[in-house]
Amino acid sequence: MESTLSFYTPIADDLRRVEESLSLVAADSEEPIKSLLEHVVAVKGKRVRPSITLLVSEILGCTTDKPVTMGAAVELLHLATLIHDDTVDNAAVRRGRATLSSLWGPEVAVLVGDYLFATSAIHVCNTEDIRVIKGFSRTIMDLSSGQLTEHFMANQWQQTREQYMDRIFKKTGSLFATAAESGALLSGADERVVKAVREFGSNLGIAFQVVDDILDFEGSAAEIGKPVGSDLASGVLTLPALLLVEQYPDDNPVVAVCEGADRERNLERAVDMVRNSGVMAGVYEVADTLRERAIASLAPLPNSDAKRALLELSDFVLERHV
Amino acid sequence: MESTLSFYTPIADDLRRVEESLSLVAADSEEPIKSLLEHVVAVKGKRVRPSITLLVSEILGCTTDKPVTMGAAVELLHLATLIHDDTVDNAAVRRGRATLSSLWGPEVAVLVGDYLFATSAIHVCNTEDIRVIKGFSRTIMDLSSGQLTEHFMANQWQQTREQYMDRIFKKTGSLFATAAESGALLSGADERVVKAVREFGSNLGIAFQVVDDILDFEGSAAEIGKPVGSDLASGVLTLPALLLVEQYPDDNPVVAVCEGADRERNLERAVDMVRNSGVMAGVYEVADTLRERAIASLAPLPNSDAKRALLELSDFVLERHV
Repeated sequence: MESTLSFYTPIADDLRRVEESLSLVAADSEEPIKSLLEHVVAVKGKRVRPSITLLVSEILGCTTDKPVTMGAAVELLHLATLIHDDTVDNAAVRRGRATLSSLWGPEVAVLVGDYLFATSAIHVCNTEDIRVIKGFSRTIMDLSSGQLTEHFMANQWQQTREQYMDRIFKKTGSLFATAAESGALLSGADERVVKAVREFGSNLGIAFQVVDDILDFEGSAAEIGKPVGSDLASGVLTLPALLLVEQYPDDNPVVAVCEGADRERNLERAVDMVRNSGVMAGVYEVADTLRERAIASLAPLPNSDAKRALLELSDFVLERHV
Repeated sequence: MESTLSFYTPIADDLRRVEESLSLVAADSEEPIKSLLEHVVAVKGKRVRPSITLLVSEILGCTTDKPVTMGAAVELLHLATLIHDDTVDNAAVRRGRATLSSLWGPEVAVLVGDYLFATSAIHVCNTEDIRVIKGFSRTIMDLSSGQLTEHFMANQWQQTREQYMDRIFKKTGSLFATAAESGALLSGADERVVKAVREFGSNLGIAFQVVDDILDFEGSAAEIGKPVGSDLASGVLTLPALLLVEQYPDDNPVVAVCEGADRERNLERAVDMVRNSGVMAGVYEVADTLRERAIASLAPLPNSDAKRALLELSDFVLERHV
């Protein structure tokens, strides 16, 4: 965790307690699960999702411990989905470390993912807030259905921008939305605030995914830890690719990749075209609009250091998050 | 569903509503998930676990709909674990139908399993009973840790009977225990009854698994739908195998299989020895003791048609459950 990032300041203590909870999940388990979980938890992410829960509840003056419990739940769910995604994608490395599935095989990875789903559910239950618990279950549904839809829409270059947006809300936005919303619910905020905060999380999460999809084309392989254009290579059509199809209907390299024609050369062509055409400007515009919508949603919340921190977090998340 | 089985009689209406809930999970989903779930739900199992929840709540005079909701949750969780187990085991067929993973690949199977975990969690949440919800999360943890332990203890012929018992409680007994316990909790039963009913479920579930492990040696390949001795073939040491190791310490074919020596011949030898030695009598004794313990646990419950049905269910489950 980069403790130098200033948006952590108002929630430093609570975030430390989230981190302790995560370590305890491993420490309290029996072998062989213990060692497997230590491997998973040892990779310190930026803890963006729990930070959102904590900052929202800080802004709203929550006085209980529940946001810490919820923060741990949200991160555990995120870790569980990463494990299953890596298993599904056959990924060898995540955040610079070998994945569970590459080290112990997909069987173990599936089951450790399930175990983490369960521990995240137990944490949510400890908030004793039925609405939060229900929202969390709904989110697990969204996350898996988003991934499934992505799988089944592979290589379908005719898909619409709306289908893309719906899909990335499910696979990424839904957990951001829940992280934010639960911070408000656990603070006893009124319905209008709960809704506003959920909107914030949802838009931020979708924007986060759009930026991620930009990086897949614009980043260097070293930065993003995988070959450039690897989404398209595996048939996943992201916004840059879809806009390229829209804007260059003739002899389009994305269409060619999807149809399996001279894949390698066309993949290279697609990456070049995305980088050097007006397409990327359009994608950035979408990300900006989402970011603005996210920030505008926070208007009903009182100004405070915590609110400023949440705005900083939003900027940080959207700048570069790999 | 074999509607002729008499233990269904006192809960026929409720069980029909559980069945409707399961169908709705598919019907209410969007494509492509809808078709995938239809495939999963179309396989009508015996619905033993929801029947336990319904019968317990019937015995205890529950007047709400919550046991129906819980029954659906319990079956959905069971289906989710079957999907992940089949994926982990690379199984091609389940209950006479091709498995999801064999039809659509392990990626889809992992994600559909996750989706079903989530739908089961949503059903549990709809009971609005925090203790039931917490117990359910704990059960998901037990189920996955039981499977993980089985995986990591493969071929370890030195493992003890206690380790085996602990493992099968987790992988099978825990869900039976939760199915029974939640029936009592949702009926507002007192703590003594809740505990007794949980004991019943736990012992019945463990006995169920012991019988399953007997069948792996004693059944015909046609009956059990897989080659005889396939647990041992994949390194899983069940009670018959462990007792064989205990009773024949010298030149033991189970030890030989685990150590990879002339596997095929020794696997055949192991199956023969288990079938034709006193080992099986010992295993049946264990199953009987568990069954008696299960039934004795029901003593505090009032006599009724529903209680008689629950006893019948127990006999049925332990007789032959493939």
